[in-house]
Amino acid sequence: MQSNRIRHSAFQQKVTSAEEAVKAIGPGDTVAVSGFASAGTPKAVIPALADRIHSARAAGANFTIDLLTGASVSTETEKMLAEIDGIALRMPYQAESTARQKINQGRMDYVDIHLSHVAQQVWEGYYGVVNVAVVEVSGITETGELIPSASVGNNKTWLDVAEKVILEVNSWVPDAMDGIHDIYYGTALPPHRRPIELTDVEDRIGQPHYRVDPAKVVAVVETNAPDSASALTAPDAVSEAIAAHVLDFFDHEVRRGRLPENTLLPLQAGVGNVANAVLGGLDRGPYRGLTCYSEVIQDGMLHLIKHGTVRFASATALALSEAGIEELTSNIDFYRQHIRLRPQEISNHPEVVRRLGIIAMNGMLEADVYGNVNSTHVMGTKIMNGIGGSGDFARNGYLSMFLSPSTAKNGAISSIVPMTPHVDHTEHDTQVLVTEQGLADLRGLSPRRRARVIIERCAHPEFRPLLTDYVERATATPGAGQTPHLLGEAFSFHQRYIESGSMRLQDGPAR
Amino acid sequence: MQSNRIRHSAFQQKVTSAEEAVKAIGPGDTVAVSGFASAGTPKAVIPALADRIHSARAAGANFTIDLLTGASVSTETEKMLAEIDGIALRMPYQAESTARQKINQGRMDYVDIHLSHVAQQVWEGYYGVVNVAVVEVSGITETGELIPSASVGNNKTWLDVAEKVILEVNSWVPDAMDGIHDIYYGTALPPHRRPIELTDVEDRIGQPHYRVDPAKVVAVVETNAPDSASALTAPDAVSEAIAAHVLDFFDHEVRRGRLPENTLLPLQAGVGNVANAVLGGLDRGPYRGLTCYSEVIQDGMLHLIKHGTVRFASATALALSEAGIEELTSNIDFYRQHIRLRPQEISNHPEVVRRLGIIAMNGMLEADVYGNVNSTHVMGTKIMNGIGGSGDFARNGYLSMFLSPSTAKNGAISSIVPMTPHVDHTEHDTQVLVTEQGLADLRGLSPRRRARVIIERCAHPEFRPLLTDYVERATATPGAGQTPHLLGEAFSFHQRYIESGSMRLQDGPAR
Repeated sequence: MQSNRIRHSAFQQKVTSAEEAVKAIGPGDTVAVSGFASAGTPKAVIPALADRIHSARAAGANFTIDLLTGASVSTETEKMLAEIDGIALRMPYQAESTARQKINQGRMDYVDIHLSHVAQQVWEGYYGVVNVAVVEVSGITETGELIPSASVGNNKTWLDVAEKVILEVNSWVPDAMDGIHDIYYGTALPPHRRPIELTDVEDRIGQPHYRVDPAKVVAVVETNAPDSASALTAPDAVSEAIAAHVLDFFDHEVRRGRLPENTLLPLQAGVGNVANAVLGGLDRGPYRGLTCYSEVIQDGMLHLIKHGTVRFASATALALSEAGIEELTSNIDFYRQHIRLRPQEISNHPEVVRRLGIIAMNGMLEADVYGNVNSTHVMGTKIMNGIGGSGDFARNGYLSMFLSPSTAKNGAISSIVPMTPHVDHTEHDTQVLVTEQGLADLRGLSPRRRARVIIERCAHPEFRPLLTDYVERATATPGAGQTPHLLGEAFSFHQRYIESGSMRLQDGPAR
Repeated sequence: MQSNRIRHSAFQQKVTSAEEAVKAIGPGDTVAVSGFASAGTPKAVIPALADRIHSARAAGANFTIDLLTGASVSTETEKMLAEIDGIALRMPYQAESTARQKINQGRMDYVDIHLSHVAQQVWEGYYGVVNVAVVEVSGITETGELIPSASVGNNKTWLDVAEKVILEVNSWVPDAMDGIHDIYYGTALPPHRRPIELTDVEDRIGQPHYRVDPAKVVAVVETNAPDSASALTAPDAVSEAIAAHVLDFFDHEVRRGRLPENTLLPLQAGVGNVANAVLGGLDRGPYRGLTCYSEVIQDGMLHLIKHGTVRFASATALALSEAGIEELTSNIDFYRQHIRLRPQEISNHPEVVRRLGIIAMNGMLEADVYGNVNSTHVMGTKIMNGIGGSGDFARNGYLSMFLSPSTAKNGAISSIVPMTPHVDHTEHDTQVLVTEQGLADLRGLSPRRRARVIIERCAHPEFRPLLTDYVERATATPGAGQTPHLLGEAFSFHQRYIESGSMRLQDGPAR
């Protein structure tokens, strides 16, 4: 297979098989891989690497790698490497069940950091030398520049810092995607950093292609393989109710003069049902010409763009279903005018997020009655996915909202608890909490006032009496303090769940 | 008393007494006041306001205000208003015992937010209308501009947003201080925000004076009163040991090529003994031409500037002892060349902090074995001061360090605990922990590895066995997870302290 996508002879000469390419990767190497959400993960080299590790193991050798990525990579890829215990250290994000299990068993080291910090920390040398980068592109130009595929993530950084580079050229990515990317080459290490001159979601501040030193490229592998499809489930009644509260709140803020009418401010929404429901709701609202500045573009965004509800969407990756991929590729000339894919250090950059005035809407596992949010650790100990970019947006955005159903596991778990046993977003960063029960606007409220509003507006009615009782008894304690707690009972909800499988009092042993 | 500091007739005509001026402040008003640390708090109007509130109360009226400031204001001021329960809501920071007590008793609402967020949240309308601003300046120019005094804080914003303005013109501030300030008028609400073009600590991006609409000025009060002196205690052996670890670490990072030699990167240090010891240590080290980008300038900084160890220091306020004030004012023409005072939204701005690559060094109350930091709540419930700017610097800096003695209360309290019952800085934001015992470099470490390093390097030897035992038993639990904890024992240190007055096992009841 030789496509017409490799238009530079220095790279043509390096075309080889994935099996040959992975010989460049050795035991103990730090390997930086393309991929963000379901898009842009290498399709051929990772399976070949998994084979290589597997064979080496069978021959008695010790072979693991440290794996750096954009965020999650395709489920198959994550699983493939986790199943063979091929990863010693994983950074910065995962969302796959086998990897999760290995991490929680202490068999894989996992470093869970803000996505905007990844590139700079690697540049700063916190992860040592990056031995090999494996990056999917959609083509190589006559001048030797690389045309990105369906995600950007940290690819620009991987190509810059790695000692050796393996390229996958995937001819499945439509030619017409070329031009949708904006690769910024203005970053630097301090004291040489300059302002990032991005003042509108639509701004182009970089170039369409990556650069790479051809001397570092040790192999080029050709593929023609689709991206994994992102699962898409229709919004349920709970998600729709959450979305309705969010949309009411936007209307309210517009009326109060705190948000621009018609266009609001650039929206960031996490991945999943609730985010999809909010975006879907916008399509039925009074807003036109909205902008989005987020990490991924899901199917719903394509509809919003088509209807003119959204004028422009900036992200670092696509995360589309099969139908969404088909919609995009069939109408790529249209969508290319309304979508920009950027490096994740720009999509999540605190400077840009603060300047643009992002409305940040992220999911959570649970919040406590004072507004501290746990996004990552089930029952305080078991990692779910990771913090991802939620902190980048929540801390620096104009409005910081966290959204969740009020219960999980058929009502056995309350998303509002006395104290979260892990904190990813502190009380200082949480301005609005939303469940299907209602919306708690915490701005300007002291902790004791927050507790009342959160319990009343967001907690499921079944858990309200328990939460109110906790707060009232904590507040009645002599010397209760600014943020009343009963340390011996702060995790009673969680302990009840661990012991009985439910946070509900009647389901579990009395405490 | 009529000084020559009021050089514009529109303002001269408004000169009056503090007692007259405070008639502009009514019950329920939101009052925004100048002051950051010990510098720049109004000297005459606040005592007059306290009298007015006291008299109104004596006559049976209800009179409280909502008080917005830069950060802490002078101790006398904070105490005066707190003692008479004159404050309904306090934002964003305090550091005074009476106010602390009222807050912890639930008698004063306190909203504890990142200092970089204050101005934008007030602009965004989160605190409603600001009825009156009371701002100390050192003079009024012929063109009606205001010469700032010894702190800037949020004064620019207060003058912009308040319906009515009371000015205090303090002729005690040396004339020659004029020109040390850089007041940036480029902020805006989104979608109108532009890049802040500050790329070096020394850069001047604004103007030396504040603007105010003279029509809003209801009173001008003349004073001639010194700023409160900041207490200064000589570094003790513990602070010196912490500083020595920090300086060794800088050397190490320079050798590894992760920090520029000679000049490092701009330093930010919190207030207090430990910060002073670190700065003092720099004077004996190999560094020259350092820069600082911080909130306050303490006495030690003047020495560093005088010796050439520090080339330039940017801050939002002075926090000097009496000797320091004397040193500065006697040599103001020299220091004005090496010091810039800026609005706190610029001194703490995420955009600027990230760009400059700040080395952030902040104190803490305690950290847990996984690197979560509690900066604000004693035993999880009682507020100490507030988060201040620590989050602005820790999240967005190049290096995020938290410093503390390993014990408090003569060894009864361990600063390293199994789990912090309040989190102000999450595991995602803590890169280095330092106590007099040693330095834990957490970069690139998964939680289980962090626990080992933190206990070994930072915990006091007396608490190490207890901490190790906790982590080992948590890790041995089936399904221990990424971040092992025993929820029933996570606060055993704190509960022991509450019950027995000590976290030490032998001092308290067995658990």
